[in-house]
Amino acid sequence: LAERVGCRLEGDGSIEVGGICALEEAGPADLTFVTDVRHLSRLQASRAGAVILPESASAADRPALRSPNPYLTLARALAVFQPADRVLPGVHATAVVAADARVDPGASIGPLCVIASGAEIGAGTALDAQVYVGANVRIGRDCRVFPQVTLREGTHLGDRVIVHSGAVIGADGFGYARDGARYVKIPQVGRVVLDDDVEIGANAAVDRATLGATRIGRGTKIDNLVQIAHNVQVGEDTVIVAQVGISGSSQIGSRVTIAGQVGVVDHVRIGDNVVIGAQAGVTKDVPQGAVVLGSPAIPHLEFKRQLASTARLPQLGKALRALEERLRALEARLERHGAPGEADA
Amino acid sequence: LAERVGCRLEGDGSIEVGGICALEEAGPADLTFVTDVRHLSRLQASRAGAVILPESASAADRPALRSPNPYLTLARALAVFQPADRVLPGVHATAVVAADARVDPGASIGPLCVIASGAEIGAGTALDAQVYVGANVRIGRDCRVFPQVTLREGTHLGDRVIVHSGAVIGADGFGYARDGARYVKIPQVGRVVLDDDVEIGANAAVDRATLGATRIGRGTKIDNLVQIAHNVQVGEDTVIVAQVGISGSSQIGSRVTIAGQVGVVDHVRIGDNVVIGAQAGVTKDVPQGAVVLGSPAIPHLEFKRQLASTARLPQLGKALRALEERLRALEARLERHGAPGEADA
Amino acid sequence: LAERVGCRLEGDGSIEVGGICALEEAGPADLTFVTDVRHLSRLQASRAGAVILPESASAADRPALRSPNPYLTLARALAVFQPADRVLPGVHATAVVAADARVDPGASIGPLCVIASGAEIGAGTALDAQVYVGANVRIGRDCRVFPQVTLREGTHLGDRVIVHSGAVIGADGFGYARDGARYVKIPQVGRVVLDDDVEIGANAAVDRATLGATRIGRGTKIDNLVQIAHNVQVGEDTVIVAQVGISGSSQIGSRVTIAGQVGVVDHVRIGDNVVIGAQAGVTKDVPQGAVVLGSPAIPHLEFKRQLASTARLPQLGKALRALEERLRALEARLERHGAPGEADA
Repeated sequence: LAERVGCRLEGDGSIEVGGICALEEAGPADLTFVTDVRHLSRLQASRAGAVILPESASAADRPALRSPNPYLTLARALAVFQPADRVLPGVHATAVVAADARVDPGASIGPLCVIASGAEIGAGTALDAQVYVGANVRIGRDCRVFPQVTLREGTHLGDRVIVHSGAVIGADGFGYARDGARYVKIPQVGRVVLDDDVEIGANAAVDRATLGATRIGRGTKIDNLVQIAHNVQVGEDTVIVAQVGISGSSQIGSRVTIAGQVGVVDHVRIGDNVVIGAQAGVTKDVPQGAVVLGSPAIPHLEFKRQLASTARLPQLGKALRALEERLRALEARLERHGAPGEADA
Repeated sequence: LAERVGCRLEGDGSIEVGGICALEEAGPADLTFVTDVRHLSRLQASRAGAVILPESASAADRPALRSPNPYLTLARALAVFQPADRVLPGVHATAVVAADARVDPGASIGPLCVIASGAEIGAGTALDAQVYVGANVRIGRDCRVFPQVTLREGTHLGDRVIVHSGAVIGADGFGYARDGARYVKIPQVGRVVLDDDVEIGANAAVDRATLGATRIGRGTKIDNLVQIAHNVQVGEDTVIVAQVGISGSSQIGSRVTIAGQVGVVDHVRIGDNVVIGAQAGVTKDVPQGAVVLGSPAIPHLEFKRQLASTARLPQLGKALRALEERLRALEARLERHGAPGEADA
Repeated sequence: LAERVGCRLEGDGSIEVGGICALEEAGPADLTFVTDVRHLSRLQASRAGAVILPESASAADRPALRSPNPYLTLARALAVFQPADRVLPGVHATAVVAADARVDPGASIGPLCVIASGAEIGAGTALDAQVYVGANVRIGRDCRVFPQVTLREGTHLGDRVIVHSGAVIGADGFGYARDGARYVKIPQVGRVVLDDDVEIGANAAVDRATLGATRIGRGTKIDNLVQIAHNVQVGEDTVIVAQVGISGSSQIGSRVTIAGQVGVVDHVRIGDNVVIGAQAGVTKDVPQGAVVLGSPAIPHLEFKRQLASTARLPQLGKALRALEERLRALEARLERHGAPGEADA
């Protein structure tokens, strides 16, 4: 196992482990893990037969897999113990597939899916039950689309893309022209492109572009209930946590981290490697590498300074009133006795 | 009726009421309700034949059901007048049910549902149309699952659980290990447990645990579009209002109220009986019984003090400038005439 | 074309345009558009054969359609070049339609839809695949319901209503009575009414009323992932951007704009023509025409003043401390030498 997950083994390598469990649940036949040395104290009480440990942790009381990156080791070990379901190729008898759709013989189409005209589905890709694939959708190889996903017409998925249940890819962007007091719908005739290795969370929504494409770059991971508006461009290896909303035409760089419930207004640019704290509201461009917080979002050190000042605000008011009192006393004293020079006059 | 809803009747008990309506819509054959004495003035104008009234309200001008808890009486009266649909047992011909799934003869499976291998469905439980039930899902008795719900593999539902349309229970948690600049998916092999009497809103998402279980305790009610991340533990009789997001591994106590659009970061503990105000951002543990507000969330009295101070901030700046002016005048006056002792020298 | 979209043609009207593209993507056979004179500089570099221009823009270097409202012209031109799919009337063989449902022969019902008992569907209306239409739902003419929408029992749609994928219309409102520490569900027996020309975004949720109706007025447009709670009343031509949450029984006027991620508490009234800025939290009534921001929301000018003051807070603290230092020096000086009058004594 140590070899398969790329770790150094410490202690008795002959132990057989049958599964992976959290510290508290693990038994003697289980492998457990400690990703942070702060949790080492909980290891002693664990009945686990073996443990994944950070390099920096002190010697273990049981066989250990030493890892410079315990999370990565855990990911690999889980993949060994609980391999993903094998895709059984074939089209379920209850799926409704257009005559001119091209489904690779190595793809799997679950029960009650609908595959519209002109769609293409690559080898190794599995569509679970009740998925909708619109006209001219293109899905690459080894993708996984969970039950009840909607991929509207023209959507493109690269290879190894994962879309979770309830996600809607390619709904119309929210675009209207005003005609007096009324709104006239601007037809949304663009599409959505999800590049290789993108993952989209449950009940998320990625809208099609008005013209052209809304694009999510390679390796970007999007959590549940996120809203990506029309014509947004997201770079590579970016992480967007649950319930974030990105407004129309904004551009998000690569290796950006956007924490939960953040809002980004339309037409702004977020540079590469930016970090946006939870619940922030981004109202203008953010230069690369910046860390921002607050609504409206500002550099995080400034935010923390303002937050500390705000916490002291009630005292500040009191201090100001005390100062005024002292000043008034001083003024009164001078008033009573006259200014010194005047007193001499 | 008074007997069936556990109320004291006041006035003529012989009136026949055919339905329940709001004050403005009710006619002479309808029962209406006043849950708060502030709305009593609107009762006079109502044409309702009878009324549910709080004990504390003054004498009514029509037959009244006196209740110490008018909302509860309303709930019971509605259940009398508009009983829930009777479940007609049986499996719809268009449902796709795995050969080894165990569907109780007293359960109802709607059209175009998919029930995967090893699933168990209890007596009195009704699955509406187009529901997805993954492999080895266990659903107890008398549950109601509305159309287009997804229950991913391994999910457990207790008895009398209600899940609304579009909710996704058991999608993969949002967990990745970094491998250089790229993210590697950590397989999410745990599951979700919804205990007895839980209700989950439309388009909500409750993610499966990485290992072990994400658990929602007995009697907890979760509103629409809520996000519950992997490994979250929620206690009993807790209420989570729409669009709240709870991050991974956080623990929420029992009898907690979380208002709309709140965010809770990962790995925090919220004690029992806590109240969290709308749009708050909880960044650390909250002791039991606390009432918190703001982002980052702080005790609500502190928040209100800061809010009041912030509202006075522009005046505070002005006051400070006025003070400085007076101080400068004083300094100038002393400068001109020398300090008193010096003047004497 | 100029005639069909109601514009003044400038330059050579004989050019043939085959499609509409954004500035950067357009080729010589394409029409492009500039909606804002700030983007005029990007027109020169565009290869577009023709352009939609605001009236106020200077003379163009190519054939131009001059418009007082370029967005409206764009909407109309797109409708000319990319007409919406023609609805092919008929019921797909795999749809499950109750015997007593009334589907107009001019309506289109897609594959794997479920139409329950008593439902009515008007001429020209198209239901895409896998839509759920509950008992006694009424849908008017020329509506478009995208795949995997749920319309719970009793919902009414006017004419030309559009509902996007994953939206859930008519789920139970979030209403409970307390019975000691436990919650008892209040049956939600009302319904939802979507008036003519309403559009509802992907994965949005509009809850049925407890009694009566939750109503969305004519021409109102609601974006993705919005939550509309039970008994909410929304006026006409109002725009509600993504991830907004409106709590129970609140009333929103006509021609209101609610930006993204706003929250509105229950039982408040928002007047006509109100504008609510992104991420605001509305906690009380807002008079018509007001522009509010912040959480809790306040008039936007006040918010901006407070925001500016907050940004200066750290300096304010410093200024206060400097003032105190000067005051202390003054006091000390007076202390050393006595007050002027006293010095004379």
